[in-house]
Amino acid sequence: MSGHIGKALHVQLFGESHGTALGATVDGLPAGLPIDIDALTAFLQRRAAKGGELATGRMEADIPRIISGLHNGITTGHPITGIFENADTHSSDYGFLPDRPRPGHADYPAIVKSGGFDDLRGSGHHSGRLTLAYAFAGGLALALLASQGIRIAAHVLSIAGIEDVPLDPLKPDMAAMQKAYGMPVPTLDVQAGERMRAAILAAKDDSDSVGGVVEVAATGLPVGLGAPFFDGVEALVAEHFFSIPAVKGVEFGAGFSASSMRGSAYNDPYTIRDGKVVTTKNDAGGLLGGLTTGMPLVARIAFRPTASIALSQHTVSLSNHVDAALEVRGRHDPCIVIRALPVVEGALALAIADLWLRQNGDRALKE
Amino acid sequence: MSGHIGKALHVQLFGESHGTALGATVDGLPAGLPIDIDALTAFLQRRAAKGGELATGRMEADIPRIISGLHNGITTGHPITGIFENADTHSSDYGFLPDRPRPGHADYPAIVKSGGFDDLRGSGHHSGRLTLAYAFAGGLALALLASQGIRIAAHVLSIAGIEDVPLDPLKPDMAAMQKAYGMPVPTLDVQAGERMRAAILAAKDDSDSVGGVVEVAATGLPVGLGAPFFDGVEALVAEHFFSIPAVKGVEFGAGFSASSMRGSAYNDPYTIRDGKVVTTKNDAGGLLGGLTTGMPLVARIAFRPTASIALSQHTVSLSNHVDAALEVRGRHDPCIVIRALPVVEGALALAIADLWLRQNGDRALKE
Amino acid sequence: MSGHIGKALHVQLFGESHGTALGATVDGLPAGLPIDIDALTAFLQRRAAKGGELATGRMEADIPRIISGLHNGITTGHPITGIFENADTHSSDYGFLPDRPRPGHADYPAIVKSGGFDDLRGSGHHSGRLTLAYAFAGGLALALLASQGIRIAAHVLSIAGIEDVPLDPLKPDMAAMQKAYGMPVPTLDVQAGERMRAAILAAKDDSDSVGGVVEVAATGLPVGLGAPFFDGVEALVAEHFFSIPAVKGVEFGAGFSASSMRGSAYNDPYTIRDGKVVTTKNDAGGLLGGLTTGMPLVARIAFRPTASIALSQHTVSLSNHVDAALEVRGRHDPCIVIRALPVVEGALALAIADLWLRQNGDRALKE
Amino acid sequence: MSGHIGKALHVQLFGESHGTALGATVDGLPAGLPIDIDALTAFLQRRAAKGGELATGRMEADIPRIISGLHNGITTGHPITGIFENADTHSSDYGFLPDRPRPGHADYPAIVKSGGFDDLRGSGHHSGRLTLAYAFAGGLALALLASQGIRIAAHVLSIAGIEDVPLDPLKPDMAAMQKAYGMPVPTLDVQAGERMRAAILAAKDDSDSVGGVVEVAATGLPVGLGAPFFDGVEALVAEHFFSIPAVKGVEFGAGFSASSMRGSAYNDPYTIRDGKVVTTKNDAGGLLGGLTTGMPLVARIAFRPTASIALSQHTVSLSNHVDAALEVRGRHDPCIVIRALPVVEGALALAIADLWLRQNGDRALKE
Repeated sequence: MSGHIGKALHVQLFGESHGTALGATVDGLPAGLPIDIDALTAFLQRRAAKGGELATGRMEADIPRIISGLHNGITTGHPITGIFENADTHSSDYGFLPDRPRPGHADYPAIVKSGGFDDLRGSGHHSGRLTLAYAFAGGLALALLASQGIRIAAHVLSIAGIEDVPLDPLKPDMAAMQKAYGMPVPTLDVQAGERMRAAILAAKDDSDSVGGVVEVAATGLPVGLGAPFFDGVEALVAEHFFSIPAVKGVEFGAGFSASSMRGSAYNDPYTIRDGKVVTTKNDAGGLLGGLTTGMPLVARIAFRPTASIALSQHTVSLSNHVDAALEVRGRHDPCIVIRALPVVEGALALAIADLWLRQNGDRALKE
Repeated sequence: MSGHIGKALHVQLFGESHGTALGATVDGLPAGLPIDIDALTAFLQRRAAKGGELATGRMEADIPRIISGLHNGITTGHPITGIFENADTHSSDYGFLPDRPRPGHADYPAIVKSGGFDDLRGSGHHSGRLTLAYAFAGGLALALLASQGIRIAAHVLSIAGIEDVPLDPLKPDMAAMQKAYGMPVPTLDVQAGERMRAAILAAKDDSDSVGGVVEVAATGLPVGLGAPFFDGVEALVAEHFFSIPAVKGVEFGAGFSASSMRGSAYNDPYTIRDGKVVTTKNDAGGLLGGLTTGMPLVARIAFRPTASIALSQHTVSLSNHVDAALEVRGRHDPCIVIRALPVVEGALALAIADLWLRQNGDRALKE
Repeated sequence: MSGHIGKALHVQLFGESHGTALGATVDGLPAGLPIDIDALTAFLQRRAAKGGELATGRMEADIPRIISGLHNGITTGHPITGIFENADTHSSDYGFLPDRPRPGHADYPAIVKSGGFDDLRGSGHHSGRLTLAYAFAGGLALALLASQGIRIAAHVLSIAGIEDVPLDPLKPDMAAMQKAYGMPVPTLDVQAGERMRAAILAAKDDSDSVGGVVEVAATGLPVGLGAPFFDGVEALVAEHFFSIPAVKGVEFGAGFSASSMRGSAYNDPYTIRDGKVVTTKNDAGGLLGGLTTGMPLVARIAFRPTASIALSQHTVSLSNHVDAALEVRGRHDPCIVIRALPVVEGALALAIADLWLRQNGDRALKE
Repeated sequence: MSGHIGKALHVQLFGESHGTALGATVDGLPAGLPIDIDALTAFLQRRAAKGGELATGRMEADIPRIISGLHNGITTGHPITGIFENADTHSSDYGFLPDRPRPGHADYPAIVKSGGFDDLRGSGHHSGRLTLAYAFAGGLALALLASQGIRIAAHVLSIAGIEDVPLDPLKPDMAAMQKAYGMPVPTLDVQAGERMRAAILAAKDDSDSVGGVVEVAATGLPVGLGAPFFDGVEALVAEHFFSIPAVKGVEFGAGFSASSMRGSAYNDPYTIRDGKVVTTKNDAGGLLGGLTTGMPLVARIAFRPTASIALSQHTVSLSNHVDAALEVRGRHDPCIVIRALPVVEGALALAIADLWLRQNGDRALKE
């Protein structure tokens, strides 16, 4: 059991990397929300491998076929299912499975867990390809949030240790992030992005891979979404972020660096500005005790390097129970961070939309 | 809605800091599990303020009154409820609420969210005191895991930027951590603990507070607990960790540092040792794609400094809608990290126990 | 795992019949709802055995001790826990357990399921006494519904085959039902109630028991609560009704008799009355395809006779694996239907309140 | 929000009657379960309209296209999605919507709930066509249960008031029910089925419809599935049954008739037979206090007559807010009870499989 999440906004993923198709069902969006299919498709295309030097050679159309829940382009209030067919699969590249599990991949525990019945071609249901379905769900959540004045954007904060300028947590530059989406590596500092690109290509030349950090922000949030403890924004958003394959760390606001600060330096003072209660800085990242403060939500998500690399690696032969060597021949991204941006944005949107719906209910939206 | 979590092992928290009592109900433990009340109480006492120099002056007995679900000290398979009475409350310390919200606390969004109806004395349901109920639930989960050979321990990795030696992720020294529980600051390196203690007292002298990082490990895990995506170990454990008040960051294995590694350095090679498939290092922290690998699970959790400090702070008067000053007089820990250790251990235990029960079912345990 | 239900309004039961205490936590009520403790207590007293000829001899105060979630008598938006202490227990009456399971009780499967670890004194967690906690939760839901103009009332439709007049489903007489609450057997037809009372006493004289049917109605419902399929009103309400011990049948509107009607007779025609869309009859019981129509919701719930009777019965000795005789000596109601009325009302209220909250959200209520 | 149910075995429905396609995702089946696609298809064909005199004229292939979760015909442990394309739709038949809601249908509350955005062509997501997706999910659950020796079968107990012989609850004749599946009206008494067939045709000739009752049984159940209260077998099974469109009543064992029995007559005595604890009769229908007793589970489900009839009916014009007449021209079954049999069986299977998985866990099945 793996593929569903959410209380008021419920998402069910399905599909395998080399199966017939994959997709997602989103259940809980209120009736009356127009879905701009072109915008949704453009959002998903940011995740697609476009044949460039920085991504996998596998090329898929990644156009959603929405088979339910929309009528004349508007939500009906019933489950919305989008399907993506798989076309460009090279299952023969995975002949080493299930005998020789790839280091860094879920192969070995998946084989044990499933008693050998898992379909691991192209990593099967464990594949990063499933993030296409996840992003589809996230794109629908983004549409709901946009209708309520809530915006979400992300940029690459670092790759291979090379750093972009961080966001101003008081006033994250959403427009600059959105503008950067067209760049090979979407950064605020163009030079940083160029250096990251070079680092990725260098790793690729070495048959190796690199990781990185995504920074994401949400603005326009109402005060008081969430709850203390288990329905806290931090808890639900982190649950979503850690559901994205390859994520190894998540922090909000000052995050880990808050651990070495004193309270007098960390606490964000309140003031009145333009008649509104705001904080004069935002080390909390817009979140206090599980609740939104109305300030921008800022989070950072750490991705490990791509697990599949062409370099020879040490593994074991499960059938012979001996050590063995492995060279993975399939097509893989030398760095998944860039394509992960819309996945992160969508994951954040799903968590916030769920909390928004719990607070506001699922009554039909007025056009 | 805030107080419940879990599928196969369900926890419901309740109570306020200055209300009559607080507690938790744990629903889903199988019948036949002996609960050692002395061990449970000792576990909770690690979280209790014992009147020392490093903790709040508020003194509570924190002895659980278990009113259901146990018969002759053994689980019946029905919900287990533990109650803790509140005794030592100084509600008059909170006269500044609900007018002047404390920076760094949930006061302001809680007031907005509740329309002013929240009970914020001692932070109410938002209080760190609720972690007593959370730790009670966690202690029960630990009993289940212990019966299955799964052990969990934690130490203080850093406070105020002073660092303990990190765990060896291949072989975390569980005994050393457990031995350290008796120290003022439970660290593996006694000197580091002493320096942390001095830093806490220095902050306290300054009417200020400090934060820190907890490192936790679980050993004896079976291979293949969890699932890809939403029921992944990372997702569920992080949901629990971020439910603990004051947590701002969570990472597994190499965590954020994995983001600057190359795949060839990050991937953990497999080998056969003593007839078992193991990895020769453990940067993954025992987790691959949401599944346990059978290697130790290692995580780090970042706590911001205590929000309540005696220093004068800038806030606003919500009634007058103007800026205002605030000095918080209540009794507070200058650092919550030490008392958070059992809360972190319990939170991890709850997540793992839930996944264990999904995999193994809730049939009665044999004595 | 047994004790929790609900999405937007979540209830967790706990406790055993002869344990220390029992209770319930209600999580999800919005902040700002005044709770009239006297009214709540009076509601629960309708379920209490008052020492009369028609109920068990076990006498408990059944006054809730609310330990969380209320501040100055108003909901805070956090979990509300009510505790009821057990006082008048005669555990020695249950010496035949766990060897000789009572026919008609959950004893035997509970022993098998729990591996013998269940606490079955007074039926333990399986006891009808738990309906006190359930009714407490229901009473809180009734308060929310009342604040929204939704009213719920019930009467005894039959006992031992003796029938009261059924409700007019177009216009159920809520006031008459509420007035009947003070009668020994709350019926609309006083004579029917008297005959039922005689039948109960006759069964009691024979050391036997009788069953019956409860009819319940809700008025003031908005149009369009619920959903098709799994979140349909019928599905959620029936889940609640069948959670009440001893319930063997549930029907809505014309119910089973609809199965022998033709569509032209069954379908409720629409008309406009006082500017509103209404139906001219109400065989649907206010429900179409999982959704409320705005007409009164009418349901009937069948209770089997009390399982515990003093007559000698055939059972088995589990230890000796042979047939055995059993005479149950404990104190039991000769008929539970009367005391079940508030439990049924509360169960219906919980289901409707959950759906109402999903539609309207959990924002703080305005006083 | 409407389309998902289940804890350990989770089902998500999607689709509309006249949309592109419909389907279901089943999440939680363990790895290693072979799925016989031919058997599954044959099971679904029992629900299909085959062009006969007793069913709708709408003809669909109703062959599942399974796009995920199976590998070489065996479950992988990941979500299984089946898709059914819609082909034979006459949307023009529904031109009266959304102005003139059909009596007996969800049209009116669905319009109000959705603010007019629902897609009601062919009843949209509310349509009985969705039971195809539901039955698909149920068919997968039946495969799991069959692998564990649990069998489920159903027959038509009554249509239009004409009654078949009821099952022997001690020993329901599963083979006889399965044999009857090939009959026009699957009954145990062939003559009764013939009379029902005549009654359906008579109603059809009158442009009218009839309802009926389905009786279903499960055998091979282990002792102790379920729980008291909310996870009781009765509660979960009834939630499923009332999720089937047109169901107005559900009862287990003696059901409503238990309400007029005395305890001494109702209680099922225990005895030892062939070394097993059994009851000498089965008025409880195999269920005591939410738990399976190991005896056959027997339930009856009442269906109202088909709502869509060709006879002129009274409704209203929502746009003009006046009374109006309505003749429904679409293609509809004069009686849905026959096609409902596999839906009922599947619904029961889903509830039991969920409880079975909670008790036994989701570890991979051994072939």
